[in-house]
Amino acid sequence: MNIEKTKSVKVKKKPVTQKKAGGNAKKSANAVKNKDKKSLKIRFLGGVGEIGKNMTALEYGKDIIVIDAGLIFPGGNMPGVDIVIPDVTYLQENKSKIRGIIITHGHEDHIGALPYILKDFNVPVYGTKLTLTLIEGKLKEQKINDAKLNCIKAGSTIKLGCFSVEFINVNHSIAGAVALSVTTPVGVVFHTGDFKIDYTPVRGETMDLARISEIGKKGVLLLMADSTNVELEGAAVSESVVKDALRRVFEENASRRLIIATFASNVDRLQQIMDLAVQFKRKVAFSGRSMLNIADAAERIGELNIPENVIVDVERIGKLKDEETVIISTGTQGEPMSALTRMASGEYNKVTIGKNDTVVISASFIPGNEKMIYSVINNLYRLGAEVIYESLEPIHASGHAQRGELRILHSLLKPKFFIPVHGEYRHLKKHAALAQSMGMKESNILIAEIGDTVETDGRRIKMGEKFPAGSKFVDGVGIDGADSFVLRDRKHISEDGLMIAVVAVEELSAKLSSVEIVSKGIVMSDAAVSEAKNIVYNLLKQKDLKKVKDEEELGALIKRSLKNFLFKTTKKNPMIIPIVMVV
Amino acid sequence: MNIEKTKSVKVKKKPVTQKKAGGNAKKSANAVKNKDKKSLKIRFLGGVGEIGKNMTALEYGKDIIVIDAGLIFPGGNMPGVDIVIPDVTYLQENKSKIRGIIITHGHEDHIGALPYILKDFNVPVYGTKLTLTLIEGKLKEQKINDAKLNCIKAGSTIKLGCFSVEFINVNHSIAGAVALSVTTPVGVVFHTGDFKIDYTPVRGETMDLARISEIGKKGVLLLMADSTNVELEGAAVSESVVKDALRRVFEENASRRLIIATFASNVDRLQQIMDLAVQFKRKVAFSGRSMLNIADAAERIGELNIPENVIVDVERIGKLKDEETVIISTGTQGEPMSALTRMASGEYNKVTIGKNDTVVISASFIPGNEKMIYSVINNLYRLGAEVIYESLEPIHASGHAQRGELRILHSLLKPKFFIPVHGEYRHLKKHAALAQSMGMKESNILIAEIGDTVETDGRRIKMGEKFPAGSKFVDGVGIDGADSFVLRDRKHISEDGLMIAVVAVEELSAKLSSVEIVSKGIVMSDAAVSEAKNIVYNLLKQKDLKKVKDEEELGALIKRSLKNFLFKTTKKNPMIIPIVMVV
Repeated sequence: MNIEKTKSVKVKKKPVTQKKAGGNAKKSANAVKNKDKKSLKIRFLGGVGEIGKNMTALEYGKDIIVIDAGLIFPGGNMPGVDIVIPDVTYLQENKSKIRGIIITHGHEDHIGALPYILKDFNVPVYGTKLTLTLIEGKLKEQKINDAKLNCIKAGSTIKLGCFSVEFINVNHSIAGAVALSVTTPVGVVFHTGDFKIDYTPVRGETMDLARISEIGKKGVLLLMADSTNVELEGAAVSESVVKDALRRVFEENASRRLIIATFASNVDRLQQIMDLAVQFKRKVAFSGRSMLNIADAAERIGELNIPENVIVDVERIGKLKDEETVIISTGTQGEPMSALTRMASGEYNKVTIGKNDTVVISASFIPGNEKMIYSVINNLYRLGAEVIYESLEPIHASGHAQRGELRILHSLLKPKFFIPVHGEYRHLKKHAALAQSMGMKESNILIAEIGDTVETDGRRIKMGEKFPAGSKFVDGVGIDGADSFVLRDRKHISEDGLMIAVVAVEELSAKLSSVEIVSKGIVMSDAAVSEAKNIVYNLLKQKDLKKVKDEEELGALIKRSLKNFLFKTTKKNPMIIPIVMVV
Repeated sequence: MNIEKTKSVKVKKKPVTQKKAGGNAKKSANAVKNKDKKSLKIRFLGGVGEIGKNMTALEYGKDIIVIDAGLIFPGGNMPGVDIVIPDVTYLQENKSKIRGIIITHGHEDHIGALPYILKDFNVPVYGTKLTLTLIEGKLKEQKINDAKLNCIKAGSTIKLGCFSVEFINVNHSIAGAVALSVTTPVGVVFHTGDFKIDYTPVRGETMDLARISEIGKKGVLLLMADSTNVELEGAAVSESVVKDALRRVFEENASRRLIIATFASNVDRLQQIMDLAVQFKRKVAFSGRSMLNIADAAERIGELNIPENVIVDVERIGKLKDEETVIISTGTQGEPMSALTRMASGEYNKVTIGKNDTVVISASFIPGNEKMIYSVINNLYRLGAEVIYESLEPIHASGHAQRGELRILHSLLKPKFFIPVHGEYRHLKKHAALAQSMGMKESNILIAEIGDTVETDGRRIKMGEKFPAGSKFVDGVGIDGADSFVLRDRKHISEDGLMIAVVAVEELSAKLSSVEIVSKGIVMSDAAVSEAKNIVYNLLKQKDLKKVKDEEELGALIKRSLKNFLFKTTKKNPMIIPIVMVV
């Protein structure tokens, strides 16, 4: 598949201004018009957890460019929430300024919010081929057909308002990842995106260190760099090392069926497994919807080379011998509905796990997911399978630079100013310390938080205004603020349960007709529930209902009368919902 | 404090039958009487997650001994639950057989269920001095004054029915940990408890390998051994290494205030910090209730040596210079109410974190707690503190044997049969494989699950009957089954929200008076709520209420009418609570 040919999602192609790599951008008309606004503003939007990860905006005068538009998957403190996206109130209010959204690579935490954001402001989106292909898949699901997707290549430069954006090839755990060298009216801003340096990639090129070195020589005003693995010394493991480890798995399990779970978006990993399958004369079956979709899309754009007669439908693997089969599956994070999780609990009728299966989890465990993943691993062992996972074998390589690689980056770019990004606060602090240890002045390094604006006029850098930013959650079809009552109520009920007290009065200030009590999620005897009913009944009998102003006041009275009783009886504070019916 | 003197909790002392270590138990009267019941039954009770950790019972004829009575802290899938304890239905039904509960060491996952269990059957409890001291603290909190606590020493042997139990000194992350060599009518069962081998302990003796070797020579029928760290090669780090790392922290932070968080029960760690404080001329303040309680108790029984004039009240640390202060605090796991968590969020008025503070988290991160701990670390960095934690420095040592140590144990004991315990299923599998790699027959190794009985007559080992076992949860003051409606309802509401539909009818089969709708935890517009109301109203208007049998049928009708509407509107399945009021 080629982006240009994607009729199904009706991508409108806009001509992309291409410049020869390395050229400096001329000052744009916009920038000239806004002489009075001399400072570049870097705005940190969106996300919980990591700072500067899901979305960042560069603003100068009347121009804004947005870098990435990602989502995060909520933790246990947001029950029932599907995904969390950035609060883009600021961008909505400045729609007319937005020249485009640049996506550094196709991972969910960089593309996942696009369907929600493009509904609000359908600005052009720029990304490499695989990135756009993954975005198209997401847009299609949300029935968005008019997105303006623009395919760029590493090495090219585009002009967006007063900004000129050069794309630089980097390595990461997905193909098509780029860093950005943004020439702004006040100087060059270098944004790494997520990156590592892989000197022996299994596919594609090593990160473009030569070009980075040239950019560094010309002078970089500000570096914003990935801090994810700053706590690890040395350098990230190359994808080639994983290939060797996986080859050993194929060798050592010659008579067994192999089931390999990996991130569907890690197309290079899929390629390796496929290549090994051919070499070891096995057929490959994909399992899990996203695995099928992405493999299909990646093959169509030539990012995945699927040899002839290798793929079999997962429905048909029963007809193959174990030693002839590799199943490539989703579910590395123990996601409840994923193929691997269902295999492990015996609920996936296409694949029945048994003693002759070796399951390989070729992925890192995302913090917070450990319990779910280990539960899947335990269940696989219970069914008799062998399980190989990261703490046991080097079957996965992180996509993020470690300290040694970060030092290379800093020494090549020698930026004047530095803002560590892509990490929790502790990572940013350590990345700042690393930069200082290489000679940067403490005053030239800033750590920002979501909602912060950093301003620079090219000579100085400083914290600017705060602006409204943070998280919104998507829950079913609804979108709401992360601090909303909806979530607070859910958490309250999930911890303390609830009690509903309904009273029917013939009319307000008149006769009490009836009292009903219902409790949910409370450990409570029937006798205690009856007592609660009596408490409400007696309260209303004693009370002169004529003196009660309205339903609200009556409700408050009921609530107060139950609160103490419930705490005494249960040592909890259940939510109390009084309902007054006038009948 | 001495156990004998603990008048406050009125511990009844029973004389303990002491035997010279190494003696074989004579066949007890009970065992002889039960000639027909030739097999020893090992019953796996309690706990979620790890198998054979919180509670295990050995049963032969009319005698049962229980090993440990621990709790676990619930994960995110049990919202609002305080603690999880073993379901002891089987023991309740066999109360008269229980000769005693033997506690291997004083960690919560081995002692925490005692207050709940002793309320049911007040059998004698056996443990070493520190273990009993910690138990007493817990019993006092629950106002249990008549526990029969019996203090034993490593090296001693007691008789309990047909069993003779020898206590063997082991190393662990708490003082006073013992393994058990239980002579039963069918042979010796060796239970390691939690253990590691520390050749350079900072206090106490190295694990009693000489005695273990003797027991091995005489012949061990069955080994049950700790599998927690079976995924790690080599041997656990000695507590002495931690001492060296902590000394470096004191040296390198000479001008700064030190705040060291650790497990309160790790009395040896407290001792080391105190010794270093004396050496570096600092005062020590304890922070956190459990830290104060345990330090106090440990000092009274001579397990903690607090030098004169070293302790200051945490209220008074404001008067000391930073370089003169060490604060020892709870909160290593990011527990929301702990001292360290409150310091990090600026809510702990006794200690205000600032730029001259170095915070050391001297503990491992218990899986599942990572996010909470990192949140605390991020907040400490935000306040300007330096933070030292495990991934950066060897400031903690695990209390569990690694593969090298497990091999030593197996080779000294050479058991006939082996049941790996204390671990998730994956750990038990790997421990079984380790035993096999050392020459054990696969058929002589069994992996049990909670609720399994393993039977052996001394010649063979086999899986026996299943019995009722699992978890109970403690929620406020209530205790309920882990699979109860209470928890299911809470989880349902926390993920999907709820809608309450109240209808008032003058009498059943008569006129509809009123409809009221209340929703909580649903992202829904007011218009949608009105529509829900109309749906119920219209349903009841159209419906001939005379044909409705009872309130239940009417409720079911309302529920059905709302279910589709809600899913269509919200893409969720909120809990629907219909309430029919006859007024």
